[in-house]
Amino acid sequence: MILTVTLNTALDITYRVPSLRPHASHRVTDVTERPGGKGLNVARVLAALGHEVTVTGFAGGATGRVVQERLTRTAGVVDALVPVAGATRRTVAVVDARTGDTTQLNEPGPVIAPAEWSAFQEVYEGLVVDADAVALCGSLPPGVPVGAYAGLVRTARAAGTPVLLDASGEPLRRGIAARPDIVKPNADELAELTGSHEPLRAAQDARRRGAQSVVASFGAEGLVAATPEGRWRAVPPARIHGNPTGAGDSASAGLLSGLVERLPWPERLARAVALSAATVLAPVAGEFDRAGYEELVGRVTVTGEVTAA
Amino acid sequence: MILTVTLNTALDITYRVPSLRPHASHRVTDVTERPGGKGLNVARVLAALGHEVTVTGFAGGATGRVVQERLTRTAGVVDALVPVAGATRRTVAVVDARTGDTTQLNEPGPVIAPAEWSAFQEVYEGLVVDADAVALCGSLPPGVPVGAYAGLVRTARAAGTPVLLDASGEPLRRGIAARPDIVKPNADELAELTGSHEPLRAAQDARRRGAQSVVASFGAEGLVAATPEGRWRAVPPARIHGNPTGAGDSASAGLLSGLVERLPWPERLARAVALSAATVLAPVAGEFDRAGYEELVGRVTVTGEVTAA
Repeated sequence: MILTVTLNTALDITYRVPSLRPHASHRVTDVTERPGGKGLNVARVLAALGHEVTVTGFAGGATGRVVQERLTRTAGVVDALVPVAGATRRTVAVVDARTGDTTQLNEPGPVIAPAEWSAFQEVYEGLVVDADAVALCGSLPPGVPVGAYAGLVRTARAAGTPVLLDASGEPLRRGIAARPDIVKPNADELAELTGSHEPLRAAQDARRRGAQSVVASFGAEGLVAATPEGRWRAVPPARIHGNPTGAGDSASAGLLSGLVERLPWPERLARAVALSAATVLAPVAGEFDRAGYEELVGRVTVTGEVTAA
Repeated sequence: MILTVTLNTALDITYRVPSLRPHASHRVTDVTERPGGKGLNVARVLAALGHEVTVTGFAGGATGRVVQERLTRTAGVVDALVPVAGATRRTVAVVDARTGDTTQLNEPGPVIAPAEWSAFQEVYEGLVVDADAVALCGSLPPGVPVGAYAGLVRTARAAGTPVLLDASGEPLRRGIAARPDIVKPNADELAELTGSHEPLRAAQDARRRGAQSVVASFGAEGLVAATPEGRWRAVPPARIHGNPTGAGDSASAGLLSGLVERLPWPERLARAVALSAATVLAPVAGEFDRAGYEELVGRVTVTGEVTAA
C-alpha cells in the first residue's frame, strides 16, 4: 500500500463560461467537480497504475462529504481522511470557452484545531508502518505548524518507510532538513529554496540540505534528478500541448510507483516524464491519457552519469 | 402562515478577492454562504418581520443539504422543500475588494424530472390551502414547464389564497393570464411584458393582461402601483447608496406582509419601499437594516389617486 497525505484537500470545481468579463453576470454552461489537492491527484494516478493507495489528510463540512463520497467510488483508493469541524475548501477554475484561459479562485480552507492536528498525527503513525512508501503533498492549511512536514518525514523514517515530499516555501525548507528520500520541487520552488536557477547545481544544493534524492520538474523540458546513484536528465520526445494541471502530481506518482517496484532511476524518471506528458495530453485536467502514456514511456530520453561506487 | 415558492433554489456563495484579474490565480480572503433564490429571500424578510413562513420548491445534492441545514436554523421559517435527484445550483459572486464591483457566476441548476414536478405540485396543493398568502418567485429550472406559474396561480386561487407572482419573460406572461392578485415586475420586466417604458401606462396594461394589481419597482425611484382601489407612486426619502441585491425581494415581502395584515395600499407600498431601501443600506447582500427600516418607513412619500367607488 502507498500512503498519500493531503493536509489541504479541496473540492475542485470547474466552470465553463462563454467569455469571462469582470463585473458582468455569467451563465455557467458546464460544471464539473472532483476531489482535489496534490496528494489526492497522486493517489488517483497510482490507483490507475494498479497500486493500492490509502489517502489521509483532513475533510470536513458539506464539501468534505462530497470529497469523501467521490473517493469511495474511486477503485483502488481507501479513504482514511480525518474529520475536522471546518469545511474543506473549494477551488473554482473558470474556463473562458472563447480563449481557453483559466481564472482560478482558491478558498483558504478551514483552520485546523490543535486537537485535530494531534488526531491526524495518530492516524498517520498507524498508517505509515504498513505503507511501502508515503507521499507528503501540497500546502499546509491554517493552524497546522510550519514544521509539520519535518515531523511527518521523521515519523516515516522511524518506521522505515520511504517518503517523498512535494511542498514549497518554509514547509519544504524545514521538511528537507528531516532527510526525506525524495523531494520533488518545480523550477520555481527549487530556485526559491536554493537561490540558484542552474538546474543541476540547485538540485545538488537541495541534496546537501538533507534530501537523499532531488527530482526537479521543469515543465515541458522534463525532469532533472540528483541521487546517491547518479545524476540524470529525462526529456519527453516532443513538446506536448494541453492543460498542465496535475502534471507534477503525475510525475510524483511515477516516481513513487517506480520506487516501490524497485526500478532503476532511469526507468523511474522515464515513467514520471511519460505520466506527466500524458496528463498534459488528457482532455480532463488532472487525468492522464493511458494510450499516450504507453506510447510515450519508451520514447523518453534519459541521459546522465552514474556515481562511481 | 405565508408560503413562498422557489423552484430554482440556490446556495449563494460570496468570494472577496483583493482584485479580480482574468487568467490569474486568486486567493479568496473571505467566503460567505447562504440559501438563495428569490422566494427564500422573501421568506427571510417575512420571518424577520415576525410572520410564520413555509418555504417550498426543490432541493437536492450536497448543496441542497446545506441550503436545508441553514433554513432549519432560521427562526420562523419552516422547510418544505421537495427532494430532487440533481444538485441544487450554486451562484458565486466574486467581489473585487479594490473597486467593490461584483462578477457573478450562476450554475444552471438541476433538470427537474416529470415525477419530481408532480411531487412538488402535490406538496404545493397541500400547503396552499393553509396559507394566508403565497409568493411565486424567480426563474424556472430546466424541466419545469413554462406554464408552471400559471398552474400554481390557478391552484392558489381555487384554494382562495391570495398570490403574488415575481417572475419574468414567458413564465410571467403566462402566469399573469391566470389572474394573480399581485405581480411585481421590475422596470425591465414590465417593459418586456408590455412594450411600454411609461410606468403607469405599462402597469395598467399589465393589469389588463390579467393581474388584479401590478406593483412595479424602479430601483432608487421606488414603486408604481396600479390596483383596483387606485394608483400610487411610492418614493424613498433620499437616494440610498449600497448593494441592491435582494432589494426587490424585500419589496415583495413588504407587499405580502401588508396584504395579510390587511393594510391599505399606501401603507403596504410605504412598507415595501422602506424594506427595499433598508436592504440596500445593509452591509450584507440580501439582509435588511432594521433600524434603517424603522426610520425610513414613516418618511416614504406615497402619492396617487383612489378609484371612484
